[in-house]
Amino acid sequence: MPDVPHHHQPPKPSETTDAKPWESLDVLAMAGDAERLEAFIATLAPGESARAISRLDSHEQCRVLTTLTPGNAANLLEECPPAQATELIEQLAPQQAAAIIAELPSDHQADLITTLDDADRQAILREMGSDEAAAVTSLAQYPATEAGGLMITEFLSFPETTRVAAVLDDLRSNAETYADYDVQYAYCTSAFGELVGVLRLRDLLLTPSAKPINDVMIRKPFFVRLDTSLQQLHDLFEDRSFYGVPVVDEGGRLQGVVRRGDVEQAITNRAESDYLKSQGIIGGEELRTMPLRIRASRRLSWLSLNILLNLVSASVIAAYQDTLASVIALAVFLPIISDMSGCAGNQAVAVSMRELTLGMIKPFEVLRVWTQELSVGLINGLVLGVLVSLVAIIWKGNYWLGAVVGCALALNTLVAVTVGGALPLILKMLKRDPALASGPILTTVTDMCGFFLVLSFASAVLPRLTSTQ
Amino acid sequence: MPDVPHHHQPPKPSETTDAKPWESLDVLAMAGDAERLEAFIATLAPGESARAISRLDSHEQCRVLTTLTPGNAANLLEECPPAQATELIEQLAPQQAAAIIAELPSDHQADLITTLDDADRQAILREMGSDEAAAVTSLAQYPATEAGGLMITEFLSFPETTRVAAVLDDLRSNAETYADYDVQYAYCTSAFGELVGVLRLRDLLLTPSAKPINDVMIRKPFFVRLDTSLQQLHDLFEDRSFYGVPVVDEGGRLQGVVRRGDVEQAITNRAESDYLKSQGIIGGEELRTMPLRIRASRRLSWLSLNILLNLVSASVIAAYQDTLASVIALAVFLPIISDMSGCAGNQAVAVSMRELTLGMIKPFEVLRVWTQELSVGLINGLVLGVLVSLVAIIWKGNYWLGAVVGCALALNTLVAVTVGGALPLILKMLKRDPALASGPILTTVTDMCGFFLVLSFASAVLPRLTSTQ
Repeated sequence: MPDVPHHHQPPKPSETTDAKPWESLDVLAMAGDAERLEAFIATLAPGESARAISRLDSHEQCRVLTTLTPGNAANLLEECPPAQATELIEQLAPQQAAAIIAELPSDHQADLITTLDDADRQAILREMGSDEAAAVTSLAQYPATEAGGLMITEFLSFPETTRVAAVLDDLRSNAETYADYDVQYAYCTSAFGELVGVLRLRDLLLTPSAKPINDVMIRKPFFVRLDTSLQQLHDLFEDRSFYGVPVVDEGGRLQGVVRRGDVEQAITNRAESDYLKSQGIIGGEELRTMPLRIRASRRLSWLSLNILLNLVSASVIAAYQDTLASVIALAVFLPIISDMSGCAGNQAVAVSMRELTLGMIKPFEVLRVWTQELSVGLINGLVLGVLVSLVAIIWKGNYWLGAVVGCALALNTLVAVTVGGALPLILKMLKRDPALASGPILTTVTDMCGFFLVLSFASAVLPRLTSTQ
Repeated sequence: MPDVPHHHQPPKPSETTDAKPWESLDVLAMAGDAERLEAFIATLAPGESARAISRLDSHEQCRVLTTLTPGNAANLLEECPPAQATELIEQLAPQQAAAIIAELPSDHQADLITTLDDADRQAILREMGSDEAAAVTSLAQYPATEAGGLMITEFLSFPETTRVAAVLDDLRSNAETYADYDVQYAYCTSAFGELVGVLRLRDLLLTPSAKPINDVMIRKPFFVRLDTSLQQLHDLFEDRSFYGVPVVDEGGRLQGVVRRGDVEQAITNRAESDYLKSQGIIGGEELRTMPLRIRASRRLSWLSLNILLNLVSASVIAAYQDTLASVIALAVFLPIISDMSGCAGNQAVAVSMRELTLGMIKPFEVLRVWTQELSVGLINGLVLGVLVSLVAIIWKGNYWLGAVVGCALALNTLVAVTVGGALPLILKMLKRDPALASGPILTTVTDMCGFFLVLSFASAVLPRLTSTQ
């Protein structure tokens, strides 16, 4: 009978034995029992441990983080969303924060240091060793959307003249350190630190150990520059099955390694952040554990801009108050026109955002997109126009009213869909963030245009509209 | 002087030598020059090749795909978004389609087969070998969001009694086949096909070759079930640095391997699809290369639902026509109230969607979220209310009008924010898709409530509003 494995599945969130895991966290931290605390956290799914610590108050959170060893506290931070990790670190004393940060992988260190406020950053950097602080500061200078900001600096490299046997020895004797590196490759460098080759560790299987590694290494390896963009990295990993790709500076010297997983993670973050921004969450992240002041004020800055834009479009209605007063039924249709055009336009925005991300359209192809949206806008505008005019006719028995609201909605849908399709491309050309800006601009344009169409059509045929009322 | 590498960066999209790469595609396909066609495609970035083929008409696309070898055509399809790959395959003769599909990795095969329409699927399956067709059909039965739907069936497995030397021999003699597998691990099975261990190939480096692999293998390996969810897989990979995890059936028999990259990709797809659905793109994907009929009708089905919901909320305005007729200025504020409440509510929806994805809140914690949004709603409602009432007072010089619109917007923002925060959790509990349903439901509730608040407040103080007009 073969040795059938036990079932080592990760615990399902729903199966967590503890309905309120944060209570156990706090009890174990108060007891100062680092081992049992770590063992308990290990039983939680990653989302679950982030959720658990978020439920504790600031004082309790500090107690949990300082009870754990810095290494285990760092693991816990890695499981938290970035905004939460920043919050947690800011609550600790600089010395404790520095000890935990030192245990994070280099790319996370840099990300975290960047998001801290100035005073905290300075205090923590002072507590770190000067080499370490310099390394973090150096990494933190690169934008998070470029290879320099995505790379880790923990990698294996050997001078190209090293013998295979020496590499194997090094691997064996440093097995524990390298276990954290998640290593499949080593990089070979010239005497000047320039990247000259990549060594697949599994190729060492087949090589006599007296040979130098430049006999086995893959020469002229793929590499990227510090400023290679996230999208280019994503394309590269789509195209090739690399686990990681080396990053070199302008002199060709090896600076770090960008791993596939980190690129995928950054792409996911970008998609999630685009969604949040499109709904008016500036900065692309808000957690409800953040202070109320920050949550309310960031949302409000977006809303304040919107209310100003709304006033601009409402001024069109104000200009036609007399028409409205004569045909009060029009007031019922104004919010419908505004909302429907907004919906139709946002669909086109979403498709353009998607195609931009996929690289299926380029910003300069505005005219192409405009034409493609024209046909959709004509069809859907016609259908919506007929629907709304039928409602007007049935409700008020006035064909002219039906014609006014129907034509206005049809035309405005056409405007909304074509503007919505083109807008993200135009914003991209102007180097603005289309995820954040498309919505408010579109709504303002389509509201103004929609209100103007309904009310000017109505003014033109005013006697016909009032005759049967 | 060391051997400095040439710069093997992936070509930047902006640097593509050819402004309209689709023209070269078509010329090479017409010439029937498979090698130069493949070489040309290899120079394009992945997004670029998908974009290039999308620009050709149906006839030209077929010519490109059939000129390439099936293996190269499959590589090209892998670079296209799923919806585009489906479109391309549907244009081919079943025999050609089957030959290309056979070259895709097993998880892509299953995804593609699932999205084909019934007639095409049957025709293509008939052209495949019966074993192959059975394997694809079997994989296609699992949902794309579970381990069964995400796994590949190309993996290395050896009976646990195999000797290390035999494994090394097998690796050497099948090096070419295995190159596609992207192998770091092999799985060890019992005589009954049950998973009993995992073998890290690099561990073979250190093992005498006469030993059986169950001496080196890691026993009781991690594994997941066919129905393990995408989120659980994501958590697992966040928690451990596995490259892939084996999938077993109910009998513990090895069925496939889920790779880290495929899980990350699926998570990204989910984020992108949530964004598209929130903007009214049903199904979560639309490319402008799709037929107009499909694009217009899918968007329209969402818009038609919205216009119905709009009519429901507008009926509140209709019920208060007399009040409106007396204070026509109110008509100017109705769209502002509707839009601002919608914005404020959508911010709360976005934060809840985000926290649900991260696992930071559970659907049953509705009350907790509601309370947390209450404070934000109070602050932001107050600020927006004051702003809009100031506008009304300055414009019309009537403090009562200011009070009516200000109080209505403040209260309605509070309603929108609390409902918006809770809605995704409630929809999740009811097993509805919050990305698709939250927006329309929220807008309808907040519009009805907002219109009612303004117009009922106005009716209550009507003499005060009309006295100064």
